[in-house]
Amino acid sequence: MLYFMNDYSEGAHPKILEALVATNMEQHVGYGLDAHCENAIDLIKKRIGQPDAEVHLLVAGTQTNTIALCSFLRPYEAVISTELGHISVHETGAIEATGHKIIEMPSKDGLLKPEQIDKACDSHVDEHMVLPRVVYISNATETGSIYTKAHLEAIRKKCDQRGLYLYLDGARLANALTCDDNDLTIEEIAALTDAFYIGGTKNGILFGEALVILNPELKSHLRYTIKQRGGMLAKGRLLGVQFEELFRDDFFFELSKHTNEMSKLLRSGIKALGYDLVTESSTNLTFVVLPNPIHAVLSKECYYEAEKPFDENNIEARFVTSWATPKEDVEKLLKLLANYKKIYA
Amino acid sequence: MLYFMNDYSEGAHPKILEALVATNMEQHVGYGLDAHCENAIDLIKKRIGQPDAEVHLLVAGTQTNTIALCSFLRPYEAVISTELGHISVHETGAIEATGHKIIEMPSKDGLLKPEQIDKACDSHVDEHMVLPRVVYISNATETGSIYTKAHLEAIRKKCDQRGLYLYLDGARLANALTCDDNDLTIEEIAALTDAFYIGGTKNGILFGEALVILNPELKSHLRYTIKQRGGMLAKGRLLGVQFEELFRDDFFFELSKHTNEMSKLLRSGIKALGYDLVTESSTNLTFVVLPNPIHAVLSKECYYEAEKPFDENNIEARFVTSWATPKEDVEKLLKLLANYKKIYA
Amino acid sequence: MLYFMNDYSEGAHPKILEALVATNMEQHVGYGLDAHCENAIDLIKKRIGQPDAEVHLLVAGTQTNTIALCSFLRPYEAVISTELGHISVHETGAIEATGHKIIEMPSKDGLLKPEQIDKACDSHVDEHMVLPRVVYISNATETGSIYTKAHLEAIRKKCDQRGLYLYLDGARLANALTCDDNDLTIEEIAALTDAFYIGGTKNGILFGEALVILNPELKSHLRYTIKQRGGMLAKGRLLGVQFEELFRDDFFFELSKHTNEMSKLLRSGIKALGYDLVTESSTNLTFVVLPNPIHAVLSKECYYEAEKPFDENNIEARFVTSWATPKEDVEKLLKLLANYKKIYA
Amino acid sequence: MLYFMNDYSEGAHPKILEALVATNMEQHVGYGLDAHCENAIDLIKKRIGQPDAEVHLLVAGTQTNTIALCSFLRPYEAVISTELGHISVHETGAIEATGHKIIEMPSKDGLLKPEQIDKACDSHVDEHMVLPRVVYISNATETGSIYTKAHLEAIRKKCDQRGLYLYLDGARLANALTCDDNDLTIEEIAALTDAFYIGGTKNGILFGEALVILNPELKSHLRYTIKQRGGMLAKGRLLGVQFEELFRDDFFFELSKHTNEMSKLLRSGIKALGYDLVTESSTNLTFVVLPNPIHAVLSKECYYEAEKPFDENNIEARFVTSWATPKEDVEKLLKLLANYKKIYA
Repeated sequence: MLYFMNDYSEGAHPKILEALVATNMEQHVGYGLDAHCENAIDLIKKRIGQPDAEVHLLVAGTQTNTIALCSFLRPYEAVISTELGHISVHETGAIEATGHKIIEMPSKDGLLKPEQIDKACDSHVDEHMVLPRVVYISNATETGSIYTKAHLEAIRKKCDQRGLYLYLDGARLANALTCDDNDLTIEEIAALTDAFYIGGTKNGILFGEALVILNPELKSHLRYTIKQRGGMLAKGRLLGVQFEELFRDDFFFELSKHTNEMSKLLRSGIKALGYDLVTESSTNLTFVVLPNPIHAVLSKECYYEAEKPFDENNIEARFVTSWATPKEDVEKLLKLLANYKKIYA
Repeated sequence: MLYFMNDYSEGAHPKILEALVATNMEQHVGYGLDAHCENAIDLIKKRIGQPDAEVHLLVAGTQTNTIALCSFLRPYEAVISTELGHISVHETGAIEATGHKIIEMPSKDGLLKPEQIDKACDSHVDEHMVLPRVVYISNATETGSIYTKAHLEAIRKKCDQRGLYLYLDGARLANALTCDDNDLTIEEIAALTDAFYIGGTKNGILFGEALVILNPELKSHLRYTIKQRGGMLAKGRLLGVQFEELFRDDFFFELSKHTNEMSKLLRSGIKALGYDLVTESSTNLTFVVLPNPIHAVLSKECYYEAEKPFDENNIEARFVTSWATPKEDVEKLLKLLANYKKIYA
Repeated sequence: MLYFMNDYSEGAHPKILEALVATNMEQHVGYGLDAHCENAIDLIKKRIGQPDAEVHLLVAGTQTNTIALCSFLRPYEAVISTELGHISVHETGAIEATGHKIIEMPSKDGLLKPEQIDKACDSHVDEHMVLPRVVYISNATETGSIYTKAHLEAIRKKCDQRGLYLYLDGARLANALTCDDNDLTIEEIAALTDAFYIGGTKNGILFGEALVILNPELKSHLRYTIKQRGGMLAKGRLLGVQFEELFRDDFFFELSKHTNEMSKLLRSGIKALGYDLVTESSTNLTFVVLPNPIHAVLSKECYYEAEKPFDENNIEARFVTSWATPKEDVEKLLKLLANYKKIYA
Repeated sequence: MLYFMNDYSEGAHPKILEALVATNMEQHVGYGLDAHCENAIDLIKKRIGQPDAEVHLLVAGTQTNTIALCSFLRPYEAVISTELGHISVHETGAIEATGHKIIEMPSKDGLLKPEQIDKACDSHVDEHMVLPRVVYISNATETGSIYTKAHLEAIRKKCDQRGLYLYLDGARLANALTCDDNDLTIEEIAALTDAFYIGGTKNGILFGEALVILNPELKSHLRYTIKQRGGMLAKGRLLGVQFEELFRDDFFFELSKHTNEMSKLLRSGIKALGYDLVTESSTNLTFVVLPNPIHAVLSKECYYEAEKPFDENNIEARFVTSWATPKEDVEKLLKLLANYKKIYA
């Protein structure tokens, strides 16, 4: 069975596991105050060029978004996001469960347009409405698209004009920053946002997201919120050890380069075979218009997500590569797609 | 100065005040357990033809919506509403503040289409998303439109198919049920919904909304929720006395008949003068495309809400009538609009 | 039937009703932005000697406490109160429902001791525990006791040392400030607290509590929170008109003087008859040790609260006077108690 | 440096790590729906003798308590706990952050007395107060004490009489069930509670707690709540693999037997040396009255928690053993304590 379901199907890159094994019997204080966490946080701060950043190592993405946003917002304040934003649909109302409205803007490609920030603010004008305070974007987005430097700068400018904080969900940040279409660095991400997170779970470690807070106004009692929201890991060292590996010698980016290469190979192959893409993607998510009969047979040999019907005759299929995807698997998948194209087209 | 700002500009109809004065020195137990509340609730249950309904007399609309919805929903459940629903925009995120997402569907006229219920359910399919559980509609809507019997029955049917509760916000229910376009009775409203509220504040009393719960599944510990959410009035008798007046001899509907007549007069006059309406309305809200120069002068002689720009040359103006609107005021407003039309058109 | 159940058994003092009738047909903007609210707020600010205070007129006590505390506290912060505090027991977890822990300190008389503030702070020392931030006290307390000036100053000092805000629940503030044992003025209350509220519901008006915020750090977006928490009255003018009456010519204090006199008369009579008090009270709540057989007969002629068993042979009975209690009723009650004492003792 | 700080100072038992390494490159669906989770859950259900139990594998203790309780309780309902309960003090108000009050009962030994359940229920009698619904106990408790079978049965009986659910926090359940004073089995725990959790983090795995729900009334949409509260691990298989190891051949209990033996050795040694215990303990927490001068020197050679001052001359020191504590370390610690006793006593 081929596996293109997601980028968290395996455990961790062997190098990560080795580090966990090597440090296993060390004795450390709990809750993320150990030497590995400290060192990992130092490595991250250096790499992003922000010595004064506050960094917290957390376990999972929904947890990180929830902790960040419920910490940044006062009860009557709201966050602006596209309707495709992970917080909008795929977190079971986690943000609303902390009491905050998400102002959702329409989107096809997952990218928030600067003028949508104006629209959200202009339609929330007094105390009978929530007060927009944070802009949430994902890079890479939920469709695999990415923000260019110009786009991110334009959003930053709007946020400054409107008195908003900019928070970037980086569950797939590594993929965004190492794909062909990218013109941003992680230093620029850090310079242009008020807070963002560096995703580890989808980039080769067992679990872990590094929440980075740049704006001093937002650095308040985060550890209290982390504990209260169930995000404080007793053996925090596990996060420290893993992020040390990721941020030693840019292993973080090395992993995602492979991920992106595999998707590039896959996409060019798919296109060459005459399949249509549902939407353009720059990173490791590929959305394909897959004829129903092909889906019927392919799904018995390959795991992938059948997102939803595209039209009467086709489904939207999502193929995802990861640090662990072998080139042979991409080639096998392309071979299957080639065969079925011939048979069913 | 003319007043077409809203339907809560005055205190209460004199008959209501008289009843409050007449009962003032009676001594009653607090918190809505007094004889007036009991009697008012009996009158309401009889009038709607639902002897087994559970009725709670509350102070205000946002409070009522919040108490109802946070009582009906479990933490992971959500409410479906149009994007124009009062809960969606005009309650400062009150529903989200209780932890629940509002699934907002696009709308121009404020009426939820049955197929939008399907759409909301079909796009929330597993535990990574909230679970739709309540459908929220307003009658009359926030734009002054109303639900026909066929429309309400279609929504009821969808709710039954989808396992959803139907909750109707009746802040302006009296207006809906007494306008020319209406074909629904209050008995039918009660028969077709799981819960609804009967708005008093906007129909002639000082304050008060009667929350009616029909579905036995939803009748659980409401008084706990009311107290917790700050909705339990110490001198609950004030609500009892006022609703007794409203539901004695259908005074409730008598008040709104006048309201609607005044708006009908106003709308026909406005159309006759050649002004355009932003949207059709059946009840007491009239949205007019008002040229900017006319707005500039008219707003010095009449209070009304200047909702937002309609286009470069016009604003959207909202004119509201109430039980207290004198016919002469409507005539004066029409005269002003006639004059300005001549001067500025 | 005699009525010593509570201080909100009647409607309002006739003077209040007259003002509501007199202003009834005036047309005003909604939501507390009208001229009566403005004027009432000015009168309050003058009376308390705090021209820069922020004042909000709200409907009810639980609502006021909830809005104040959820506005003052960040999610991980907590409020310190005695275990008898109204917020601790009698508000159905309203504060917890906004996400905040109440750190409850033991108490018999309802008065928080300054050293209990130290104890609460010393037992909450890091991010695994909530962060104490507000001290909540009631004056008069739930047992009828009051804070002396020295006591309030000592609590203020502790709050300053510990970085805490001081919030005073004044549901029965008028009673506290006009009783014989009192040595505080309302100006001093305002000078010593960060915020407090002036209770109207239990002192002669239909409903209404004036939330007064002194500390500029706490004056942030209150109207958003009020709207979100269901506390914004459409016809806010009703609150304005009533508080205008209360704060014109110190009518507020005149009402409570009568209340206190009636309780003083009652208590001295009760003691003279040889009944024991459960606890000393300075204001309008009197807790009496009432033999069971006397309770059995008295409760058929007089409404009062039978709080709980005192011991096997007695109950704790609570007798409350109000602005509306006639002297004759106190005398009738004392006569009954005298008779039953003879019969059953 | 010796380490008696806590039972989560190391990573995991080597056997656990080996299993994670061995299964690392397997490809699995995410979010706990994989074969390892299924198998682990089967093993647990068999071991506790409850084929119909619902089991969820979660990451951490505060997370588990929060998810369980906010799922079991309706907004106006509360949980009863001792004041020493982990949820009462050491989870930064996590339960209150989901909107629920904890009714805290006084305690020295961490064990809830059956009559305290009566007391909590009897003092919460109407809708002005929260409604007690869940009883929370920990076994072993936060002081190291344990529930006997008779005690647990008495609590179960009270819960049945009062209509309450019984939830047991088993962060240190393995220690409770394998200590000398214990007379309960895990099957009995499962038979006597409505839900409980089996703690892994403090018993030899990297992280993980298994929430077990026995009462069908509580088995509703847990996966929605888990996702919403940030507790759904993308690579859920990590939990499955670890719990498979724990529940294969009772490795779970084997680990805690060692833990308890080390504490027993330590306690008998400490007592023999003439030190006083703050409180009796049956399991792996030992609270010692440590003279200040001894603490001053010992704390340079050994990590342990200096809980708080015991009196002017002593502190309360907490020594914890774990699956990883070598016998030699206990002996070294006892030797130090013996030496210092001679020098400073």
